[in-house]
Amino acid sequence: MSTPKVVVIGSCMTDLVSYTPRLPALGETIHGHRFSVGFGGKGANQCIAATRLGATTAMVAMVGDDSFGQNYLQNFHDNGVNISHVGVTSEAATGVAPIAVDDAGDNCIIIIAGANLKMTAANIEKAEKMVKESTVVVCQGEITSEATLAALVMARKHNVTTLMNAAPADANLDPAIIENSVIFCVNESEAEVLTKIQVKRVEDAQLAAKILLTRGCRSVVITLGGDGAVYSTLDEHIYVPADKVTPVDTTGAGDAFVGALAYFLAYHPQLTMEEMMQRSCKIASVSVQAAGTQSSYPTRDKLPSHLFV
Amino acid sequence: MSTPKVVVIGSCMTDLVSYTPRLPALGETIHGHRFSVGFGGKGANQCIAATRLGATTAMVAMVGDDSFGQNYLQNFHDNGVNISHVGVTSEAATGVAPIAVDDAGDNCIIIIAGANLKMTAANIEKAEKMVKESTVVVCQGEITSEATLAALVMARKHNVTTLMNAAPADANLDPAIIENSVIFCVNESEAEVLTKIQVKRVEDAQLAAKILLTRGCRSVVITLGGDGAVYSTLDEHIYVPADKVTPVDTTGAGDAFVGALAYFLAYHPQLTMEEMMQRSCKIASVSVQAAGTQSSYPTRDKLPSHLFV
Repeated sequence: MSTPKVVVIGSCMTDLVSYTPRLPALGETIHGHRFSVGFGGKGANQCIAATRLGATTAMVAMVGDDSFGQNYLQNFHDNGVNISHVGVTSEAATGVAPIAVDDAGDNCIIIIAGANLKMTAANIEKAEKMVKESTVVVCQGEITSEATLAALVMARKHNVTTLMNAAPADANLDPAIIENSVIFCVNESEAEVLTKIQVKRVEDAQLAAKILLTRGCRSVVITLGGDGAVYSTLDEHIYVPADKVTPVDTTGAGDAFVGALAYFLAYHPQLTMEEMMQRSCKIASVSVQAAGTQSSYPTRDKLPSHLFV
Repeated sequence: MSTPKVVVIGSCMTDLVSYTPRLPALGETIHGHRFSVGFGGKGANQCIAATRLGATTAMVAMVGDDSFGQNYLQNFHDNGVNISHVGVTSEAATGVAPIAVDDAGDNCIIIIAGANLKMTAANIEKAEKMVKESTVVVCQGEITSEATLAALVMARKHNVTTLMNAAPADANLDPAIIENSVIFCVNESEAEVLTKIQVKRVEDAQLAAKILLTRGCRSVVITLGGDGAVYSTLDEHIYVPADKVTPVDTTGAGDAFVGALAYFLAYHPQLTMEEMMQRSCKIASVSVQAAGTQSSYPTRDKLPSHLFV
């Protein structure tokens, strides 16, 4: 097996989606129309997104000793992800996200992180050889802060680029996580929780990015949904608009962007950040035009070849 | 394999239970404490309850072509249930019941019957030889009305005792289902939905039972939770109180009662109905003193031997 160039250290969640006429009230039993099980979790999503573009990838994660965990291992295997550092624990169930979606398209979500929260710095240490040999390490906020920080510190020790996607929003994010991020990536609402700047326009995002830069990260990406993304360092501010598309399902679009950015960082380091961001926005906008999360992530052969030059 | 004496024609559901601090509101994402997967569905529960008491049983059911379905087949196998007439369909997912339970113990439930609603009269026809050779056929209201009615009519044609548990409550229950029930069994709220009699006391239950008897069933059982159950025919009214116990988890207690009653009907036909009901109440009261649904159903060796004389 070839050495993984992109190593994602993060979460695996099984999405359990119930489609119902309306959401149930306390004490109520209602009948739903349809149920589907999907592979999710920000870490795994980003890993699959990068893999679909042609990256050699590895996942460092923890699943439970249950059928959801076994199915997830199979999913990684089917996608060609290296899972030599995906642990199986009997201390907690595989992470799940029961989601109810009503006929109006509104939803409510319960996240039960389970095995994801059993990841420790010791689990990360075991992956040191693989991290050292990689080009980009990608982290998110769905595992323990301890494991995420250990991963970022280890990657920086070996001069590996760190791409930290601080999602979901966490007002108490460990400052050391920002300090060890070469690229610190958040969306509008996550930026707002961290900086108290309400991010509605590009200018707001650039102001929020300036504040985040004072906290010690090398650069900041703030994604703006259908409006694209900004990139800021102490020296430059770039705004990249996204293609105007009619979305079918925006679930996991942010993860498609992060996975794509990891791919370009690892495989096309000669590109400018502006070019990498444009291409990553393009890939995210393709993903929102298909249903599902990982199932909506395009493979390289379905994308214009100029994205890979 | 020995000929099944108790044949249950009904539902399989996978319970997906999320324990959360509170229930999520529309548009909200919250974090839960813990998640567990359990085997449920009234049909399967009743089948397992009877099997634990020593009955040779068979299930006639439908699961989806997915991991929940495979796990359910394994569960039946592990419990020694004949599954030669459990079908696997690719037209719908295995039935699931996502359940959220908050810190106060309140819950909300979504039932997505899925594969259970793919059962047709044709599926029942295939099980005719097995039904003919059985002693008791048990049905509930969680599969199609068409399949339930076909099962009851087939059983009566062969002079097999039919035990119909009309749960969940259904104001539009097919009258032919009642007509083909030797024993028609409901709880207080199901009795109320069918008769418009508010069932709070034993006298109410006996009045509701009289109304149900006019609809053509041979006898009626109305369960009253911790207060026991009543049994009525045109000639007699019996009230059986339950043991006073401190319940740990009442989920599936009604199914424990129905499964036990099926066992006694099949294996101890010399007992009076009063005696069978007393023993079945006893077994249900044992089940509420342990957590879980099927996991709370006692095996014969854990029960007083006088129950099996």
